[in-house]
Amino acid sequence: MGTDTLLQALRQAVGDAHLLASGDLSAWELDWRRRWRGKALAVVRPGSTAEVAAVVRACAAHGTSLVPQGGNTGMVGGGVPDTSGTQVLLSLQRMNRVRRLDADNLTLTVEAGMVLQAVQHTARDAGLWFPLSLAAEGSCTIGGNLATNAGGTQVLRFGNARELCLGLEVVTADGEVWDGLSGLRKDNTGYDLRHLMIGSEGTLGVITAATLKLFPQPAATMTALAATGSLERCVALLRLARQRLDAGLTGFEVMGRFALSLVEKHFPALPRPLPDAPWTVLLELADAEGEAPARARLETLLGQALEQSLIDDAVVAESIAQARGLWHLRESIPLAQAEEGLNIKHDISLPVSAIPAFCAGTDAALQAAIPGVRLVNFGHLGDGNLHYNVQAPAGGDGPAFLREREAEVNRIVYDAVAAHGGSFSAEHGVGQLKVHEMAERKPAAALALMRRIKRALDPQGLLNPGRVVQDL
Amino acid sequence: MGTDTLLQALRQAVGDAHLLASGDLSAWELDWRRRWRGKALAVVRPGSTAEVAAVVRACAAHGTSLVPQGGNTGMVGGGVPDTSGTQVLLSLQRMNRVRRLDADNLTLTVEAGMVLQAVQHTARDAGLWFPLSLAAEGSCTIGGNLATNAGGTQVLRFGNARELCLGLEVVTADGEVWDGLSGLRKDNTGYDLRHLMIGSEGTLGVITAATLKLFPQPAATMTALAATGSLERCVALLRLARQRLDAGLTGFEVMGRFALSLVEKHFPALPRPLPDAPWTVLLELADAEGEAPARARLETLLGQALEQSLIDDAVVAESIAQARGLWHLRESIPLAQAEEGLNIKHDISLPVSAIPAFCAGTDAALQAAIPGVRLVNFGHLGDGNLHYNVQAPAGGDGPAFLREREAEVNRIVYDAVAAHGGSFSAEHGVGQLKVHEMAERKPAAALALMRRIKRALDPQGLLNPGRVVQDL
Repeated sequence: MGTDTLLQALRQAVGDAHLLASGDLSAWELDWRRRWRGKALAVVRPGSTAEVAAVVRACAAHGTSLVPQGGNTGMVGGGVPDTSGTQVLLSLQRMNRVRRLDADNLTLTVEAGMVLQAVQHTARDAGLWFPLSLAAEGSCTIGGNLATNAGGTQVLRFGNARELCLGLEVVTADGEVWDGLSGLRKDNTGYDLRHLMIGSEGTLGVITAATLKLFPQPAATMTALAATGSLERCVALLRLARQRLDAGLTGFEVMGRFALSLVEKHFPALPRPLPDAPWTVLLELADAEGEAPARARLETLLGQALEQSLIDDAVVAESIAQARGLWHLRESIPLAQAEEGLNIKHDISLPVSAIPAFCAGTDAALQAAIPGVRLVNFGHLGDGNLHYNVQAPAGGDGPAFLREREAEVNRIVYDAVAAHGGSFSAEHGVGQLKVHEMAERKPAAALALMRRIKRALDPQGLLNPGRVVQDL
Repeated sequence: MGTDTLLQALRQAVGDAHLLASGDLSAWELDWRRRWRGKALAVVRPGSTAEVAAVVRACAAHGTSLVPQGGNTGMVGGGVPDTSGTQVLLSLQRMNRVRRLDADNLTLTVEAGMVLQAVQHTARDAGLWFPLSLAAEGSCTIGGNLATNAGGTQVLRFGNARELCLGLEVVTADGEVWDGLSGLRKDNTGYDLRHLMIGSEGTLGVITAATLKLFPQPAATMTALAATGSLERCVALLRLARQRLDAGLTGFEVMGRFALSLVEKHFPALPRPLPDAPWTVLLELADAEGEAPARARLETLLGQALEQSLIDDAVVAESIAQARGLWHLRESIPLAQAEEGLNIKHDISLPVSAIPAFCAGTDAALQAAIPGVRLVNFGHLGDGNLHYNVQAPAGGDGPAFLREREAEVNRIVYDAVAAHGGSFSAEHGVGQLKVHEMAERKPAAALALMRRIKRALDPQGLLNPGRVVQDL
């Protein structure tokens, strides 16, 4: 069967208006970082689970592979087609409806294409809270968040996207619909297909809907900044904060001196409430009781930290605007970095206890290899997740640095990550970018299990082939 | 190859003293509820991961199936051999060492055979907390807890066993060791093999070690009892408690009037601090600040609940001894039930919002089918998990009731569970007991995926065959 009969079958499945096979398809073919440009045979935009299933069946019948895509905001090229012009790009964006909000069960069931911010707002409008939060929330979709097991700023308390999901609806590789939408906190009836699908980046099935966990809205949120001299003290402060604030601690971000200096350089208008320090920590407390007790709790914690010499200075935001300003500092680091020039990014995780030794050793190894190299080090210390980015020496040529040194830098960083029991992809996933790291660094026994699973659930290899695991 | 060569290979793998092929093996062959009595070819007790791998390889080479077993405290017959006399019982009990405690990372790595209570104590001795807690904790093992995704009393805040595990070490069906022990909160490198193994009841691999999440010890724990008139009010109280106490709420158990009356009848010495009521709720608060603020928080909550007429009466435990007494009431229900006679047990879960309607409808349906039938209804309302047990009419013959009415009662209960979007196994698993429910009630698309996974990871069908999924 040829391309024409496939296109006809797809047109029949989704309707004429939602099959795009010509014109400018770059909104779907090019990733937002403009790093990967693919070429699709067609873009299909189904509007229902039944239509997704029909699309998958049509592709399966024609032996044509599919790339599912949500908001096209991924960091590793997992959601754009390859360059062959033979793949169907399956966009879930039209599937953006709320199916059910159950306030007493604290659950929300939505379709996969709903934008994360719309999910957050749906919860908020019911007086509840969906805590998944990340930079792309205005355009990423919940289906993509689940397919990639997204992280973000609230993982410390709430876990990644997977921990916020109770059930899924998935179209399998042969076009069957598995309705695993469940509002259940406990369900021990067989293998956990939900967790297998979450984080599989569209290679085992197409997520079409999800039932999400909601939480009561906190009565108050309080943000503070603290300055400290070393990563060891950051780790000790985290330990004290977890002990004193327990689950109230919802954010614990660190920013290295050089990272913050780039923000100061490129965004001089942003307020810097604390003097320069080797490390600055952003703490966030969500409190069930209210603003005054929350402030008292955070101030007590910071007072103890000062007494114990874990920190040298601290400030608690006096208003919501000031709290936003503190977060803005943190969130401006990636932009400031980009202003400074191209750099080599690493989204790594480590046991929290290993972070000081990892940074000391790896900083030194990089300086030895590339004298004057600059380290933009910041991230979610509470989750053991660093964005450990490597910038060319001052005045250096960014593109040339990337071209000539990326492989060497990656080897130094990832070897050190492995030596400390860490991961080369904390929250961004594998996609296209890290399939070779997978093959090289993932234990052989794990890879063998993953390949067996992939072959079992997608024997034709039609779901997002070449991503996550290769050499099937 | 015959039995003799297999036994010789097993002897070589674990040493003479740890291969038991004769004598009384009922400690391993008979489940603790005395419901399933199997017959093993031999019991092997490896002392290390390498020995487990050698055992699995020997069995694989001989085409002999294996049944992994921890503390033999399961509720569904998943850990005892079948009656054929051809299966090898693989006991993990000798693998009971601590591998590593990492206080700054809040993780504990232990071998699978460690008794849950020993895990709890190891954490406690380091000033930390491993919150998994259930009735069998003095004899169940952490490997069994993970293989069955155990629940217990702290699920409301901390989730099931799966949510408390960061990494696993597993021996696969072909005797390879997958070292997935990880102290990482974030790791998006491929399919989540950990969650696939957890809850698979030994049918996909043999768990030999795990890295567990720890938490700071709470400064105080506070327990209260509240009396209320309806399940609707219990649900409203839960909602208020989650809003006011947030993650501090660690327990929310309900006990029906008849359930508590059985405790009063068979254990008259236990104090009953509240008068008789249709429903009694046990609430527990774990607090990071201390006893006085914890008491104030719980009393404020109960005061609001009284004002809003959600409850009619309440008492907060004045001492640790009194708190234990309140929990003792709750924990005595299964024993009191057993004293009253055999009954038909259901470990079900439902969306919390569906519980009142489910109970009203199912109570009525059972009364219509069996006039005078008595319902022992209690459980973890906060998790939507009820132990909805059905006892013969007063003066009835328990064994005859079970023999004659179990199928009919199960059908009424499980049909209603399904109609309300619930599960026929909340925390006990499938094992032997519920494989037929699986085949009948699990969606066909889910079963098909599970069978593919089982065939892919255990193509010879040697790991705990016949449990969880059948008809491979």
